[in-house]
Amino acid sequence: MATTYRDAGVDIEAGDAFVDSLGPIVRRTRREEVLSGIGGFGGLFQVPSGYTDPVLVAGTDGVGTKLKVAFRANRHHTVGIDLVAMCVNDIVCAGAEPLFFLDYFGTGRLDGGQGRQVVEGIVEGCVQAGCALLGGETAELPGFYAKGEYDLAGFAVGVVERDAILDSSAVCPGDVLIGLASSGLHSNGYSLARKVLLEGPDADRWLDPMLTPTRIYVSAVLAAVRAGGVRAAAHITGGGIGGNLVRVLPEGVSATVDPQCWERLPIFDAIQTGGDVQEEEMRRAFNLGLGMILIVEPDAVEGVMDAVRAAGEEPMRVGHVESGERAVRWIEGSG
Amino acid sequence: MATTYRDAGVDIEAGDAFVDSLGPIVRRTRREEVLSGIGGFGGLFQVPSGYTDPVLVAGTDGVGTKLKVAFRANRHHTVGIDLVAMCVNDIVCAGAEPLFFLDYFGTGRLDGGQGRQVVEGIVEGCVQAGCALLGGETAELPGFYAKGEYDLAGFAVGVVERDAILDSSAVCPGDVLIGLASSGLHSNGYSLARKVLLEGPDADRWLDPMLTPTRIYVSAVLAAVRAGGVRAAAHITGGGIGGNLVRVLPEGVSATVDPQCWERLPIFDAIQTGGDVQEEEMRRAFNLGLGMILIVEPDAVEGVMDAVRAAGEEPMRVGHVESGERAVRWIEGSG
Repeated sequence: MATTYRDAGVDIEAGDAFVDSLGPIVRRTRREEVLSGIGGFGGLFQVPSGYTDPVLVAGTDGVGTKLKVAFRANRHHTVGIDLVAMCVNDIVCAGAEPLFFLDYFGTGRLDGGQGRQVVEGIVEGCVQAGCALLGGETAELPGFYAKGEYDLAGFAVGVVERDAILDSSAVCPGDVLIGLASSGLHSNGYSLARKVLLEGPDADRWLDPMLTPTRIYVSAVLAAVRAGGVRAAAHITGGGIGGNLVRVLPEGVSATVDPQCWERLPIFDAIQTGGDVQEEEMRRAFNLGLGMILIVEPDAVEGVMDAVRAAGEEPMRVGHVESGERAVRWIEGSG
Repeated sequence: MATTYRDAGVDIEAGDAFVDSLGPIVRRTRREEVLSGIGGFGGLFQVPSGYTDPVLVAGTDGVGTKLKVAFRANRHHTVGIDLVAMCVNDIVCAGAEPLFFLDYFGTGRLDGGQGRQVVEGIVEGCVQAGCALLGGETAELPGFYAKGEYDLAGFAVGVVERDAILDSSAVCPGDVLIGLASSGLHSNGYSLARKVLLEGPDADRWLDPMLTPTRIYVSAVLAAVRAGGVRAAAHITGGGIGGNLVRVLPEGVSATVDPQCWERLPIFDAIQTGGDVQEEEMRRAFNLGLGMILIVEPDAVEGVMDAVRAAGEEPMRVGHVESGERAVRWIEGSG
């Protein structure tokens, strides 16, 4: 019998039909700079006017093993938000406005309903971030992924005026740390969180809290930057508060974080208690309630907090910058 | 016993050490527009000067099941070239110069030696394409991939002057098709090719030919565009010559391809004979020897062929454009 591509596990027409079906939902993310109907092999995006010396800022990331929770719950409409969040929260740390996003969706055999849920989440994330979903790749890879599973990679490009790049070199002693509340685990620490929360008897009650999408801080951070006085921004991902905050500390300064300044969400306590996890390990693996930290000059704190609140996020003073050797110190308290 | 992140299958330090070790090899791809030492969360790239109305062109792609051949051969230094090729060959079809590239590498447990081979291939691809490797994500996802396996996604961004975009609207009857020789299967049709070639007794002799990296046509296509008279370019990937050429045909024109104008590589004959694959299926699944097709106005053919040759690629006149309804017709001959 003759071999066809379909015999070999790949159905080109089904894939094309899936991609075609996405057009109407992707349209929600349209920006005026998107040039459509031109060229067929790449997505076209006009560099926005009004920049004197525009610098592009690009980032890529995935959702990690949070996807395993989506597989287990069979709910796939939020992980796309996480995918966008992980990328755009990185590029906004340079002060950049996200322009466009592309996604890679790899699966063994395309399940159109599942794929559509994933893309709907990506679209929602792009709308929240204000960027266009400019392209994507849906790859069917027989034998790569377990049945019903997939992996996601995202890619975001933003733009910032060269002399407005948040480069953290101005961070100095006396600056204030303003933390923005996270919605939960965001997209980090899931290997550990799943091991503790999803292998016990109460596993099912944790599925929903574990799927809460990562907050997208784009409008809050850009509003804070416009308010003035923001010297650096750190997206709190793998490595936790310390591991990410240290990335925006120049030579000669340290930061002190006071964990009593914010409330630790119940999910972190459940992980710590359930898994008998050391505090040091908790701090390295999880955001512990802060998804983004801004370093702000002292006089600008109130203005920045107002701008962040107006953008719908919850800002908290959580520490300060002092002289030291590029380290993050935690105030150990009774809390 | 206390649970740590390492118990849960993720070793943050090992991942960081791997990423740090890549610095020296990534430096090969450096371009002057890359701003380093600024910002820590995204890659920064200055929009090149000299463009009046710059348009960004972005694409994403993977390597598909060609990766399975790399796993079987345990040779990982060429698939990174394929990854870059699949992305940059797409964006150069708009006439865009690739600026930068980012990669996503997902695996169950990071094997540093394997990962390094993959990144070396990506670097080689970026050097061939003239773009900077601006960033990447190495994701350890316990339980997602079989031991020793991984998936790759690539993202490329290029730039083109708005009035120089190859938009294919000018394609008209009388234009000439110039095919650029492929190096083999490139990165498409591997589910079928593996089924036929790697399940038989001669499997091992096909591993090397199946891993030949995809040609990167960036310098050839840009040289052809500079020579003048190129109206469109089609990167021949999944869907084959017909499926991709039709994407650059405007309303009212068709293309005729004469397969006797070029030599079909032995690997395609082996697949067709070994798998008793119908010719129609071969044409849909494989590039059959042409990795890129340029549509060129008649008077410009010699100049374009010279430019392509000077850039190190092998151009062939393989057909022409005529009036018709957006279809690709094959001349059926004795060959």
